[in-house]
Amino acid sequence: MEYRDAATAAAFEKAAELLGKPLELPLGRGEPESGDDFRRLATQHAFGDSWSRPGLDTRSRALVSVTIAATLGTREPLRGQLRIALNNGVTRDEIVELFIHLEAYAGAARAFDSYQVALEVFAEDHA
Amino acid sequence: MEYRDAATAAAFEKAAELLGKPLELPLGRGEPESGDDFRRLATQHAFGDSWSRPGLDTRSRALVSVTIAATLGTREPLRGQLRIALNNGVTRDEIVELFIHLEAYAGAARAFDSYQVALEVFAEDHA
Amino acid sequence: MEYRDAATAAAFEKAAELLGKPLELPLGRGEPESGDDFRRLATQHAFGDSWSRPGLDTRSRALVSVTIAATLGTREPLRGQLRIALNNGVTRDEIVELFIHLEAYAGAARAFDSYQVALEVFAEDHA
Amino acid sequence: MEYRDAATAAAFEKAAELLGKPLELPLGRGEPESGDDFRRLATQHAFGDSWSRPGLDTRSRALVSVTIAATLGTREPLRGQLRIALNNGVTRDEIVELFIHLEAYAGAARAFDSYQVALEVFAEDHA
Amino acid sequence: MEYRDAATAAAFEKAAELLGKPLELPLGRGEPESGDDFRRLATQHAFGDSWSRPGLDTRSRALVSVTIAATLGTREPLRGQLRIALNNGVTRDEIVELFIHLEAYAGAARAFDSYQVALEVFAEDHA
Amino acid sequence: MEYRDAATAAAFEKAAELLGKPLELPLGRGEPESGDDFRRLATQHAFGDSWSRPGLDTRSRALVSVTIAATLGTREPLRGQLRIALNNGVTRDEIVELFIHLEAYAGAARAFDSYQVALEVFAEDHA
Repeated sequence: MEYRDAATAAAFEKAAELLGKPLELPLGRGEPESGDDFRRLATQHAFGDSWSRPGLDTRSRALVSVTIAATLGTREPLRGQLRIALNNGVTRDEIVELFIHLEAYAGAARAFDSYQVALEVFAEDHA
Repeated sequence: MEYRDAATAAAFEKAAELLGKPLELPLGRGEPESGDDFRRLATQHAFGDSWSRPGLDTRSRALVSVTIAATLGTREPLRGQLRIALNNGVTRDEIVELFIHLEAYAGAARAFDSYQVALEVFAEDHA
Repeated sequence: MEYRDAATAAAFEKAAELLGKPLELPLGRGEPESGDDFRRLATQHAFGDSWSRPGLDTRSRALVSVTIAATLGTREPLRGQLRIALNNGVTRDEIVELFIHLEAYAGAARAFDSYQVALEVFAEDHA
Repeated sequence: MEYRDAATAAAFEKAAELLGKPLELPLGRGEPESGDDFRRLATQHAFGDSWSRPGLDTRSRALVSVTIAATLGTREPLRGQLRIALNNGVTRDEIVELFIHLEAYAGAARAFDSYQVALEVFAEDHA
Repeated sequence: MEYRDAATAAAFEKAAELLGKPLELPLGRGEPESGDDFRRLATQHAFGDSWSRPGLDTRSRALVSVTIAATLGTREPLRGQLRIALNNGVTRDEIVELFIHLEAYAGAARAFDSYQVALEVFAEDHA
Repeated sequence: MEYRDAATAAAFEKAAELLGKPLELPLGRGEPESGDDFRRLATQHAFGDSWSRPGLDTRSRALVSVTIAATLGTREPLRGQLRIALNNGVTRDEIVELFIHLEAYAGAARAFDSYQVALEVFAEDHA
């Protein structure tokens, strides 16, 4: 994906910095080219317009992001946010504590369901 | 599944017309026969009682249906609605635009998660 | 709220055009000034980055927007989207049809709950 | 609302039997007449097509209905379902137990929020 | 997992009684030991603090539990609750009726999506 | 409400410490006495079993709690969590940033709807 402007480039850079590797979102088979606009706008809204703001520290944003994705039950976004959190100073024990908190407030059903994704991320190799 | 009455038959015909092929919902292993009632009632409520009404055009109903399934994060219903939309004059570019709109109003987490289903449908062969 | 740049101004203009009156979002008592950034970014993401795109017609975006807000059960956003829809060529009968469709796919509980907001908007005077 | 056919009449009768009084859903100011179709279809789907079936006893359906409305956080439907439950042999203590169960599985936030509606219904006079 | 106290042991016993076999929740690869606390607290909250209470019969709690998990769309918890329901006197036909009720109140999209899990559980061998 | 045991008392003390005043949850008119059990268990699960754990700092738990309640759209729990957050070192600007983050990931509709509660809390007098 080519960056259309400086703002987009900065958003993708911010994402790469948080993930520890480039955010690559190639078009799928049969997907129209406008699919790039979808990726670009979502990346700009999240990484460019929010993560880049100085008003809340990165660690707090990571906890908030994991919490949103886990509460909504959105599995792939949760996977990405867990990787970002672990890559930015949140420990595995703190992730577990977040899910203990989620269990109390959003319930055992949602917490267990989303925790399956955490288990998959815990099992990945993080050097 | 045998049609119990004319209303049910009409609902399944409407579904077939929209999908471009018969809606087949065979009973599963170990599933009681009342499972047919579940399929019949859901089909009647959606295709018989709503899609068949003249008050809103088919294209608009298709967009509304995709939006509901994508907002709820219900993957198999979303898959079916995307096929119906593409089969009834909604273009792939318009599907992408719908997800760009969803990203703004329902957020990047839900939009990305549901978009995975769109990618799978885009990759299917549509003659 | 002063516009920080041309993109923000264009987003607020688009919102005003759709609503038929300026989108005014004054700071509340005790709210920090950064609250303006929240309004500005949300307005830009929705009205600047999505509604302004040519790939999906305004009427379709209006139906999609009402559907998202009604499915989520977000009452104030639903109120705004219903006003935008009625202001941009969607009829009251079509709004009712949308809720009939919502009743089938998202259920009677959510449909009835969100329909209360539609009843309030129907009761407003629309010249 | 005039009943269009025997099935609709039966659905409204079932609703009245469960509520202990007629289900009256008058059109609102500015609401188009098609609003009657919305009420009729929702009533038929819920009371005609589900509550009237013999396969699950009324008390169980009442518990299931309260649970759905409470889990979704749909306040007015929850109010109606709580009245139906209390009117059909579910005790106030059992309603509380249902919310204790909801607290465990759907969390303290949703359970407390929906419990506010239960408190309002408990305060009504039930002869 | 070792039981830290009598209350935890009682909660796991209650779960085993309902499931018809021990509830085993081993730590995953890379998961910190605090993961045991997550399992323990969720088990205690659900099975110790709610299922063990006499105020609502087991069959009713089973129906309520299936309803919560199906309404939320949490697949693994739904699978577990369906097994508990079938193991405690709820018939397959009654499960289908519950989904027919869910279809009316929470909609065809959610009902169909969650019903996929019921189909998988129906296909399991239950001696 | 009398405390049944030391664990309950500790949970209510923790809640009072976080809120800066006693957590008072009197029974409502017509509410059965078992309503106290609902309050007690929810308080124990949230404040006793999660907030009291040392594994995640109070400020982080406050951000996570606000995020859960805002994402779910549970208004009264959100109000309580916002007060706890402001009472425990989270600034108003940080609350706004959390909602900017929520807008990106959970969308403008949910973020705006939940932000109405933040506006009400901002308008309260906090000495």
